[in-house]
Amino acid sequence: MVAGVIAQTPLLPVPGVLIGVGAAGIKLSDRHDLALLQLAPGSRCAAVFTRNAFCAAPVQLAKKHLAAGPVRHLLVNSGNANAGTGPAGLEDAAATCAAVAASAGGEARAVLPFSTGVIGQRLPVDKIRRALPQAVASLSPTGWENAARAIMTTDTVPKGISRTCTIAGRTITFTGIAKGAGMIRPDMATLLSFIATDATVEPSFLQAALESVMAQSFNCITVDGDTSTNDACVLMATGQVGGASISAATKEAAIFQEALTAVCRYLAEAVVRDGEGASKFIRILVEQGASDEECRRVAYAVAESPLVKTACYASDANWGRILAAVGRAGVPDLKIAGVNIVLNGVAIVTAGSVAPGYTEAAGQQAMQAADIGIRIQLGRGASQAEVLTCDLSLDYVRINAEYRT
Amino acid sequence: MVAGVIAQTPLLPVPGVLIGVGAAGIKLSDRHDLALLQLAPGSRCAAVFTRNAFCAAPVQLAKKHLAAGPVRHLLVNSGNANAGTGPAGLEDAAATCAAVAASAGGEARAVLPFSTGVIGQRLPVDKIRRALPQAVASLSPTGWENAARAIMTTDTVPKGISRTCTIAGRTITFTGIAKGAGMIRPDMATLLSFIATDATVEPSFLQAALESVMAQSFNCITVDGDTSTNDACVLMATGQVGGASISAATKEAAIFQEALTAVCRYLAEAVVRDGEGASKFIRILVEQGASDEECRRVAYAVAESPLVKTACYASDANWGRILAAVGRAGVPDLKIAGVNIVLNGVAIVTAGSVAPGYTEAAGQQAMQAADIGIRIQLGRGASQAEVLTCDLSLDYVRINAEYRT
Repeated sequence: MVAGVIAQTPLLPVPGVLIGVGAAGIKLSDRHDLALLQLAPGSRCAAVFTRNAFCAAPVQLAKKHLAAGPVRHLLVNSGNANAGTGPAGLEDAAATCAAVAASAGGEARAVLPFSTGVIGQRLPVDKIRRALPQAVASLSPTGWENAARAIMTTDTVPKGISRTCTIAGRTITFTGIAKGAGMIRPDMATLLSFIATDATVEPSFLQAALESVMAQSFNCITVDGDTSTNDACVLMATGQVGGASISAATKEAAIFQEALTAVCRYLAEAVVRDGEGASKFIRILVEQGASDEECRRVAYAVAESPLVKTACYASDANWGRILAAVGRAGVPDLKIAGVNIVLNGVAIVTAGSVAPGYTEAAGQQAMQAADIGIRIQLGRGASQAEVLTCDLSLDYVRINAEYRT
Repeated sequence: MVAGVIAQTPLLPVPGVLIGVGAAGIKLSDRHDLALLQLAPGSRCAAVFTRNAFCAAPVQLAKKHLAAGPVRHLLVNSGNANAGTGPAGLEDAAATCAAVAASAGGEARAVLPFSTGVIGQRLPVDKIRRALPQAVASLSPTGWENAARAIMTTDTVPKGISRTCTIAGRTITFTGIAKGAGMIRPDMATLLSFIATDATVEPSFLQAALESVMAQSFNCITVDGDTSTNDACVLMATGQVGGASISAATKEAAIFQEALTAVCRYLAEAVVRDGEGASKFIRILVEQGASDEECRRVAYAVAESPLVKTACYASDANWGRILAAVGRAGVPDLKIAGVNIVLNGVAIVTAGSVAPGYTEAAGQQAMQAADIGIRIQLGRGASQAEVLTCDLSLDYVRINAEYRT
């Protein structure tokens, strides 16, 4: 199920990036489950990773390889997360990097590995090794959509977007893909997302740009409050467009950052809209807080309340559940007389109690929409925060009660 | 659905307490939805209430009346929470207290009001006023079970227990009832629970005893992470057994506290077992933490993970979800090599990765049980915490998507 239509733009090739896919049969035998990205020499990579203490073996190895030097390949598999697998898992991840080097050239330490799927099972390295030649043979500039499909797990649609912008008279392309539908509450990083651009970018700015965009995109979404062990977001800049390097605090940096933000926000929203079992897309905006932090606490308390989520699923304007979630968010000395709540333009709570003129009919009509906006004003400052989420449906439980069977 | 059988003991009368019920038709017309408790003169009351910032009108008024002087009556209604109702809600709550005084004698300020049900709708005071004479006429020492039924909302079974103990040669009776199945994550207080004893107790010790027992009972349970606006737990001591008053730090105090703890733990567990849609009862014990606080954080992260809860529902030993929840709980510098996880006696994670000798068959067998124990060792200290919860089932979503219709 998808909450709202996701506009699919054609995914543009990014000069300097080739993409291939393969079918390793890791979990299912009838689909692509490997994606291989190959970067032209001179490309730069930035990345952010999960903060989950149980970060998976491929995450540990990708961090190490990224720090060691230039990246030539990214290998992504679905069907197995290679997490909770201890020292053997690290060896398995290293073996897949060596296999990429053997099949596609380059060195094992120039490969970043990524895995997503079931936790706690050994990665079938041999299956991956056997499928790599197929992935290498299919390397092409137009492989983005195939890759977006290959990295899916419980996702129901592939997620990708392209944007262009003009910097110093040159047209720069961004193409990004992402996967993720469950175990989604990124913490300072994200699910799996790969974004490439042909821009020429200073490495330090590339990392800073990626980190700064996270707070407005992947780090403000939640499906179920569960932070994955394998989250990663990689930004690749091939420099193929030429010209001077973009560095921080320039006019060009602002244009670059704006385009990157648009790509990341689109992908983050696409992940929520395809949240496991999602039938509604919910945007929670908390305003007038004393700090960004307390606004985020309130927004997450509402976004992760099973009672709010099931009310949205039922299109039921049971706004008392929103109010109760705001009240338990732990905002110190919250004065309920200062709180207003507006649901898709309908005032439901004013000054802490039911809004004058509110009718059940108006509330129900607002809740019928596929996209639900919940605007909460705390009346105690000028800070704000936004969190995107989806409803909690019967399908969410079905999907997660049956995921491994 | 109820996760496991709850042993129903006959509920013993408590000398000095009379209980009546009435059918006001607040939400449904064919059931009792009012309970009235009348205390003999000389009785003492202690209480703890929700910390939700949006605490309901009856909670505000009950606090005020409790502070003002001796309590003569408790009035409880189900079907309407009288929360989020602003100044009008306070007037309505006061009107029901006045109606009790008019029907049953005594003063309005000696009445503690309690409400549970839908948030944000005006309390139908006239309906309650009309039903009060019926409640007064039915006042009897044996009304406990009727009251346990009258205060139910989405509960599927009434919850009550009696215990006796001997203090200074006198047999003392405790009888307690509770309601609650959804919007359950009490914070320093509880859902609705009423406990009476005929013991003679110093008022200051009565309050201290109630507060100290919370951490081991109602404050360590969660069904859905949502703290209600109306939580309250009241402990009444009628003193009808006679004898010297029990005060703190005496041998008698320890006996009293032990019996009270048993009553509260039983009721708290009964609430979880009757959690909305519950088919499994889950006991999470976190050990070897550096502090109680971090143990509680880990226990709640696991208890409130929708992925862990759906895996329990499916009897699926998908332990990677437990591991991921531990990893995201925000324990600073958690070394995964120190973490062990045992599921109903089966070691699943040892030193941060899959336990040697663990088999899928053994894991699945452990998960088949109706009662699931998850024991998590953090390997960094001697603190511990326990949290009780239930699974997340299709029925949970059905119940909460249909609650108001």
